[in-house]
Amino acid sequence: MNNLINACTDLLCEVREKSPLIHNITNYVTVNDCANAILAIGASPIMADDAKEVEEIVSISSALVINIGTLNQRTITSMIMAGKRANELNIPVILDPVGAGASILRNKTIQEILSQVKINVICGNLSEVSFLAGLKVSTKGVDTAKVDEKNDAVVIAKLVANKYSCVVGITGKVDIISDGIRVAKIANGHKLLSRVTGTGCMTSALIGSFCSVTNDYYMATVIGIATMGISGEIAFEKTGIIGTGSFHISIIDALSNMNSTCFLERAKIDETKN
Amino acid sequence: MNNLINACTDLLCEVREKSPLIHNITNYVTVNDCANAILAIGASPIMADDAKEVEEIVSISSALVINIGTLNQRTITSMIMAGKRANELNIPVILDPVGAGASILRNKTIQEILSQVKINVICGNLSEVSFLAGLKVSTKGVDTAKVDEKNDAVVIAKLVANKYSCVVGITGKVDIISDGIRVAKIANGHKLLSRVTGTGCMTSALIGSFCSVTNDYYMATVIGIATMGISGEIAFEKTGIIGTGSFHISIIDALSNMNSTCFLERAKIDETKN
Amino acid sequence: MNNLINACTDLLCEVREKSPLIHNITNYVTVNDCANAILAIGASPIMADDAKEVEEIVSISSALVINIGTLNQRTITSMIMAGKRANELNIPVILDPVGAGASILRNKTIQEILSQVKINVICGNLSEVSFLAGLKVSTKGVDTAKVDEKNDAVVIAKLVANKYSCVVGITGKVDIISDGIRVAKIANGHKLLSRVTGTGCMTSALIGSFCSVTNDYYMATVIGIATMGISGEIAFEKTGIIGTGSFHISIIDALSNMNSTCFLERAKIDETKN
Repeated sequence: MNNLINACTDLLCEVREKSPLIHNITNYVTVNDCANAILAIGASPIMADDAKEVEEIVSISSALVINIGTLNQRTITSMIMAGKRANELNIPVILDPVGAGASILRNKTIQEILSQVKINVICGNLSEVSFLAGLKVSTKGVDTAKVDEKNDAVVIAKLVANKYSCVVGITGKVDIISDGIRVAKIANGHKLLSRVTGTGCMTSALIGSFCSVTNDYYMATVIGIATMGISGEIAFEKTGIIGTGSFHISIIDALSNMNSTCFLERAKIDETKN
Repeated sequence: MNNLINACTDLLCEVREKSPLIHNITNYVTVNDCANAILAIGASPIMADDAKEVEEIVSISSALVINIGTLNQRTITSMIMAGKRANELNIPVILDPVGAGASILRNKTIQEILSQVKINVICGNLSEVSFLAGLKVSTKGVDTAKVDEKNDAVVIAKLVANKYSCVVGITGKVDIISDGIRVAKIANGHKLLSRVTGTGCMTSALIGSFCSVTNDYYMATVIGIATMGISGEIAFEKTGIIGTGSFHISIIDALSNMNSTCFLERAKIDETKN
Repeated sequence: MNNLINACTDLLCEVREKSPLIHNITNYVTVNDCANAILAIGASPIMADDAKEVEEIVSISSALVINIGTLNQRTITSMIMAGKRANELNIPVILDPVGAGASILRNKTIQEILSQVKINVICGNLSEVSFLAGLKVSTKGVDTAKVDEKNDAVVIAKLVANKYSCVVGITGKVDIISDGIRVAKIANGHKLLSRVTGTGCMTSALIGSFCSVTNDYYMATVIGIATMGISGEIAFEKTGIIGTGSFHISIIDALSNMNSTCFLERAKIDETKN
């Protein structure tokens, strides 16, 4: 296990050293937080969503993060164009299926993206990823819905990972990451993270940042999710009692101060091959 | 009067308990603040504005907040579609007529919404609501314009409430709320609230949150506006001297800590039936 | 030199006194920060980008700031319509050429704006302005690229200022402002400003605020850039060690507290006519 955590800290150093450009086609609710989270972890964000420029922009970038939080006809086209170009150039593509299951438009868009673009990492909450697994989900907006208790997040993560040949991250009280074979569980995080909008979106942006400096997208997903969880814990310790506004800002503070020492001390990552 | 304030605190508890989903079709300037204000008060935000999904999204929501701050052709259609569907399902619709009177597009859009959608609450500043009353207004952008001194906010609120059979909230130094018969005046708030963008938009988002748990939209409007006013006072006490950036964050902090005790201690609500 | 700095403080007082309306057609990443920066310095922001209203909105405004950060087909039309109307009414137009050189769409849009609209101030980083000078630039997204070392920022600023008969501001470690004849260098600022998204966008919004109260756009650009630099220094002193989230908020705090005394004490402006 120490090997995985140590490897994670190497990725952290590499992002800070290389400052890779991360192209985001994302929603207008949390876009500012995503840009600042990417900067805080040491990478460089670019947000561009017009069909006339996304292929060029992605081609100068080191990762593409597609987030369907406030999708519309105009940007769906851009997501697919950028994704295809990223595939041609072997640039990793991360998909955050915000609100999967909540509307036919979201469901069809996700299917369209998955059928036309090779996605390297899918990261969402349990109800979103359960929808991708083909399970019946009673979605309540963009937050986690109750999934049939009999289903297990590990089973769902592996199922979706194998279905789409990608890495899957499921955020929750315990985060699950799987590439279809390996499974990591992360026990970091704080429940207050769900009281601030954009913590899921920022997590996907962080995963994109780490994917840009390695071919091991499983590890990049582990560190991306762990980094947000640890930042949530630190933010809660520093400002949780003050309120969710200060907690929100403190998450970015913690990300900007994240280093190997902090990560090694705090990371609660458990890996099983089963 | 104690009855009204006590009833308000019941709504506060109910929002925190039920965490209702609030659908917002809003502007991209203050959307993040609106989402975080809704979360801070205990509800759950969803922002969706594509015509292909708004009817579905509103149908799983408990209130719809329409804010025309950065309206455009694409979202106007969505606003009306979502509003009509909300009407069919008896889901309350709140309209924030940002910048009413500032352009023909805004004026026509407001009239179009009001003619096609049954609005339950209109909340704006004096110049915006005066425009809806048919008064001549010299609007200066999206902020309050000087309205003819002879007009009285109470008269205007009642006039518009009766004209559109809805509850009207007029925010200002003293906030006025009327359902056409009852009139409440709120003396909470702080002038620094006008130095941060989005405090009006957040107020409408809060009203939507409270409307989702009651049929008494008058009371929901009273508590929505009072909650923002009280949060502004607390934020000023804690961070006013530091600057408007910290004050902005502190408003969300205060909303997230708002409870019955705080509300009962601070609320300055005066009701008259006249 | 004291004359220039003293004149700057007069502009600061005038903005706070008159609270001019500043029309922004900008990107959705940093729009909230731009609005709050404009409010913090004492002016009043309006964000409107639909082609059907931008001519009306700009006609009630005192300056127009065009920022191409997340440009798209819909807003490009609006930028040009608003710009032309501003020209007719002698309202100053500020252009922030975000990411110039990064895509054909951005490059063509900038050329189209510059050919159809008389721009009064262009403000960007060295790679963006170098692109406008016709120099070969290896752009890396929206951040500063390495420009051929032989080129000098002063030469480039003057070249672009003369080419487009406007004032040019180049932000960097030392900021350069030129109207083609006069050249000012500002040594304020802090490197942490590049770790928060939107500090460039906010700078352009501040320049717009100052241009709205004077015909001397050179001086307005000097004070706009200097104000952001000084605010960055103050923010670093107060919160730099805490993290980039707090630093971000502290920039707005510093802008909201900016006054003549602070400006006179801190401004490091050097002017040469060469």
